[in-house]
Amino acid sequence: MAGSPRRAVDRRLQLPLLCLLFQGATAILFAVFVRYNHETDTALWHWGNHSNGDNEFYFRYPSFQDVHVMVFVGFGFLMAFLQRYGFSSVGFTFLLAAFTLQWSTLVQGFLHSFHGGYIHVGVKSMINADFCAGAVLISFGAILGKTGPAQLLLMALLEVILFGINEFVLLSLLGVRDAGGSMTIHTFGAYFGLVLSRVLYRPRLEKSKQHQGSVYHSDLFAMIGTIFLWLFWPSFNSAPTTLGDGQHRTALNTYYSLTASTLSTFALSALVGGDGRLDMVHIQNAALAGGVVVGTSGEMMLTPFGALAAGFLAGTVSTLGYKFFTPILESKFKIQDTCGVHNLHGMPGILGALLGVLVAGLATHEAYGDGLESVFPLIAEGQRSARSQAVHQLFGLFVTLTFASVGAGLGGLLLKMPILDSPRDSQCFEDQIYWEVPREHEDEAQGPLRTEEPDTRA
Amino acid sequence: MAGSPRRAVDRRLQLPLLCLLFQGATAILFAVFVRYNHETDTALWHWGNHSNGDNEFYFRYPSFQDVHVMVFVGFGFLMAFLQRYGFSSVGFTFLLAAFTLQWSTLVQGFLHSFHGGYIHVGVKSMINADFCAGAVLISFGAILGKTGPAQLLLMALLEVILFGINEFVLLSLLGVRDAGGSMTIHTFGAYFGLVLSRVLYRPRLEKSKQHQGSVYHSDLFAMIGTIFLWLFWPSFNSAPTTLGDGQHRTALNTYYSLTASTLSTFALSALVGGDGRLDMVHIQNAALAGGVVVGTSGEMMLTPFGALAAGFLAGTVSTLGYKFFTPILESKFKIQDTCGVHNLHGMPGILGALLGVLVAGLATHEAYGDGLESVFPLIAEGQRSARSQAVHQLFGLFVTLTFASVGAGLGGLLLKMPILDSPRDSQCFEDQIYWEVPREHEDEAQGPLRTEEPDTRA
Amino acid sequence: MAGSPRRAVDRRLQLPLLCLLFQGATAILFAVFVRYNHETDTALWHWGNHSNGDNEFYFRYPSFQDVHVMVFVGFGFLMAFLQRYGFSSVGFTFLLAAFTLQWSTLVQGFLHSFHGGYIHVGVKSMINADFCAGAVLISFGAILGKTGPAQLLLMALLEVILFGINEFVLLSLLGVRDAGGSMTIHTFGAYFGLVLSRVLYRPRLEKSKQHQGSVYHSDLFAMIGTIFLWLFWPSFNSAPTTLGDGQHRTALNTYYSLTASTLSTFALSALVGGDGRLDMVHIQNAALAGGVVVGTSGEMMLTPFGALAAGFLAGTVSTLGYKFFTPILESKFKIQDTCGVHNLHGMPGILGALLGVLVAGLATHEAYGDGLESVFPLIAEGQRSARSQAVHQLFGLFVTLTFASVGAGLGGLLLKMPILDSPRDSQCFEDQIYWEVPREHEDEAQGPLRTEEPDTRA
Repeated sequence: MAGSPRRAVDRRLQLPLLCLLFQGATAILFAVFVRYNHETDTALWHWGNHSNGDNEFYFRYPSFQDVHVMVFVGFGFLMAFLQRYGFSSVGFTFLLAAFTLQWSTLVQGFLHSFHGGYIHVGVKSMINADFCAGAVLISFGAILGKTGPAQLLLMALLEVILFGINEFVLLSLLGVRDAGGSMTIHTFGAYFGLVLSRVLYRPRLEKSKQHQGSVYHSDLFAMIGTIFLWLFWPSFNSAPTTLGDGQHRTALNTYYSLTASTLSTFALSALVGGDGRLDMVHIQNAALAGGVVVGTSGEMMLTPFGALAAGFLAGTVSTLGYKFFTPILESKFKIQDTCGVHNLHGMPGILGALLGVLVAGLATHEAYGDGLESVFPLIAEGQRSARSQAVHQLFGLFVTLTFASVGAGLGGLLLKMPILDSPRDSQCFEDQIYWEVPREHEDEAQGPLRTEEPDTRA
Repeated sequence: MAGSPRRAVDRRLQLPLLCLLFQGATAILFAVFVRYNHETDTALWHWGNHSNGDNEFYFRYPSFQDVHVMVFVGFGFLMAFLQRYGFSSVGFTFLLAAFTLQWSTLVQGFLHSFHGGYIHVGVKSMINADFCAGAVLISFGAILGKTGPAQLLLMALLEVILFGINEFVLLSLLGVRDAGGSMTIHTFGAYFGLVLSRVLYRPRLEKSKQHQGSVYHSDLFAMIGTIFLWLFWPSFNSAPTTLGDGQHRTALNTYYSLTASTLSTFALSALVGGDGRLDMVHIQNAALAGGVVVGTSGEMMLTPFGALAAGFLAGTVSTLGYKFFTPILESKFKIQDTCGVHNLHGMPGILGALLGVLVAGLATHEAYGDGLESVFPLIAEGQRSARSQAVHQLFGLFVTLTFASVGAGLGGLLLKMPILDSPRDSQCFEDQIYWEVPREHEDEAQGPLRTEEPDTRA
Repeated sequence: MAGSPRRAVDRRLQLPLLCLLFQGATAILFAVFVRYNHETDTALWHWGNHSNGDNEFYFRYPSFQDVHVMVFVGFGFLMAFLQRYGFSSVGFTFLLAAFTLQWSTLVQGFLHSFHGGYIHVGVKSMINADFCAGAVLISFGAILGKTGPAQLLLMALLEVILFGINEFVLLSLLGVRDAGGSMTIHTFGAYFGLVLSRVLYRPRLEKSKQHQGSVYHSDLFAMIGTIFLWLFWPSFNSAPTTLGDGQHRTALNTYYSLTASTLSTFALSALVGGDGRLDMVHIQNAALAGGVVVGTSGEMMLTPFGALAAGFLAGTVSTLGYKFFTPILESKFKIQDTCGVHNLHGMPGILGALLGVLVAGLATHEAYGDGLESVFPLIAEGQRSARSQAVHQLFGLFVTLTFASVGAGLGGLLLKMPILDSPRDSQCFEDQIYWEVPREHEDEAQGPLRTEEPDTRA
């Protein structure tokens, strides 16, 4: 069947049909359910007697824009390290994130801000939707190069729902604190992607081996992604926290943690590298682990030293993961983790969750003063002790791992449907299946597609 | 005459002489007319009894910076898709925009903020000057690769004046609302550039055909431009609106509209592409049409659904324009639109103007409440009805098209002066006429300039 | 000894050991001395009865983020113009800046905000640490390609201390105004780097000549650095000034100055270029001199015309410097200034300091009104006259030059220690000594390292 005309037609139509179908559906749901909130509706805003400076826009929009850059530029270009998959990395990031912003506005809206029959939107819902897009793109990183865009859209459709439910369970039902999403974004996104990659395991992926590396300039494009992620991570973790000292402290902690993960990544990369040389894969990825690891505890009284220590540990674990654990993941666990999201988001996400358990468990009225209410409202109101909060935090981690694994297991079965377009083993990590690629040289850019090699996957 | 030593000397001197002349002139005008406004002058600011937090800087500077990035990084790199015209795309964007910021400060200042014999400047004049630079760069996109830098500076000299007058007629005389510039920026800039391209029509442009495409990495550089434009467009449309709910709502509407234009662009690009493959030209450009189309209505009560619908329509029209209309523009109308600004700024700009007519015409006291004053002051003050506002909006579109077309017709005659340096038909889209280009290979990078091919244009 | 196994082991271990040692040391110092300030500590913030909107985060964090982008993206990619040194340019910028942020927090903290036995940190200390990183990266630019990462870390260790002391002498002891750091950052960083380059002079550097140029795409990557530096320089100069009119005016002045340096750079580059062609080196660098030159006077009542004139002068001097002075620097003064920091930071820095002398000397109570206190507190309090302030400013310049020169002389001796790993004369400007570089072609990417050419430096 592979390579047959019918399959070609399928391929042509799946992506546009899903785009049109999904856009139509979200548009109808927007028409019925989505309304401006009291800060974006002109009648509601002017009815209240506010000063314009009080509008939440001025407190959160700069952070939102930084998060927005991270999602589209950061994730997009970070994944552009592959030599001939830059169009897909940046382009599918663009598509997936754009769809997720709409779909997640609805899902998160129904779960978090559904009042009087309507979802009310403003800068906070924009931030939350971008956060969800971050999780989807983390999962994308695990299966990068091995799935078609229609499969990716279906993944997003499912993952956004599960993300929303998991977030709702943690934040609203369990009273877990997780501002920067060590659990809800990084752990969830990573293990969702890893389980998906397991279900979609390709034993003959070495057929595409020649495309799986980077070239000099693609590594520099990837560094654009890395650096913007690194720079704006303080805004990411602080975007949804309480105003005032909350945002300020979270940004500061993340800033310190990232400097430490950068130093430990350079140290470890040179230590484990051949001839002491640095590996771009480590620098591009593990240096960011400091942002992931303080995603839960960054808003807490982590202390500047705590931030350094956490970042150092995360960079170390992440670099060692790339060096020693990724090969085992494939050989022993049959998980082909293209971008190494297990090292950048998975392990540092779990570490971040555990750090959150620790720091929450150590919370005292002395250390937080009257600010305890803003960081741990349930402790401040006497509903639970610090120890109980810690236990809830730990439970949140297990819930997240469960949702991610079970959800991705189901999702993988969905994505494996034979009707869905998927690249052959020999055409993975290759833009020209999905993109018009300009010819660089006369004899290039047409090769792989012309060879009508039998697809051994089917 | 072409290729003669005299021409070479002309070429050498035109650009620097214009730069020095223009800089000298604007410096003298700045010395005579430009002063700090009451928010940037330390004596005036401290004379009033303000809280520092009230300074407009804190309300508009983050948005200004996003606009600034769009103008220089966004437009500059978006146009760097050509394989050997990246230096010119980014470099001439840099030059043109820098000059425009100065010149437009003067022109807009004389028209909008000339009080007591002085122009008063601050963050708002910075935003407005950047907006004008946006229009100039849109026009640049239509003639990209076919004009020398001296011609471009002359274009900017003229276009900034016409932009200022058109904007003054629309906003101040007609009371038209156009915060994000669907009319004043996009429609004006696009049709100015298109008419200019018509006047400068080159029947033998196919001589440069080998340079007109992209290469793999130049397409990735262009995506840097695309993504930053896409990300910061909410800031662009909201930068000059009323504070509070106005900026907030405009940013939100633009955010939704862009997600929809992205989905429709991917859908349409795959539908019309060969073998269902996506075309980078569409993704780089048409996905942005959602920002253009809500430039007028974004500050109004468009509703989130309205934003999605508008963006979807704009992405569709723009993609189809690239596929089907651009070839006709050249073959039938003799308009060689290098970047396809007709598809990204022209048609979506007109659609945006018409959408503004519609949404303004539907404005009611119920929907806007006490906020009506901030969106439609003339309606709120009872000076005109919603229907009358709609008619004025429509008239503004015609005024814009007239100013752009007539102005560019005159401008084209100016730019066609034989004395002005202009690349030969065989040297269009080629950096090395204007730049020292590093040699990549021994036999490269010197070719075209050495061949003293007769210039058939003269 | 060169090329021996022992040397290889040294190379392998120096970088990671220094990273671990430095990180361990700063972590301990953080644990003992660094605490949240009253805006980041939740107990302290909530103890005071503040409105959240009063938190300094909202006044300075957007500017901080722009500065942050300049340091990591701006400097990093600007230096990536070399054809095979992009990994090192971006990567070592990343490493050096990350270490500097930690180390400078300590050094500046001990000197500026050490109260009650603790250093207190918040957004202002983040900005100041990034400023110090800017100075370190300027020095890096002078020696780019000729030093190993271990040498660079040692340079940062020393330079941060001297930067902190110099800044303390100028700002705290001499009462010098230097918000954007024409003296403390640009002059200091440039002359530190130049003297270092003199001490590390390599008479046989032409052995690496084949790597010292750019290629087409590396010049475009460098333009990413240039444009982001140019765009965010208004935020750089205004980040630490007084709130309200101070930040607003500084940003405005810098914006104008940069437009003028861009125009003069294009003019001069074409005038002095062969055949009137523009030189990317000038555009990438000299166009930025307008930001450097108003680093001191930008917060003062420079007037918009003054900003244009200053920028024009700086762009001119800088472009002429690249064309005529850089070759002399190497041939006569034995200073090999890889990035031409003398032209971008050195001369414009001194010009900026002198402009500060002039503008401070002209300060009057009439011109500044009640705002005099915020710009020149010592004049406002009657402790010194404007003329006296000018003399202090001038003295600050001499102090800076002295600290930079003497410090770098000592630093150079440290970096020349034979035990330290340093690239051979034939391997300068070459990534693959320190990085795993992906192979582009079969026969490439292994060459230089394999040839066991004798190192004539030792």
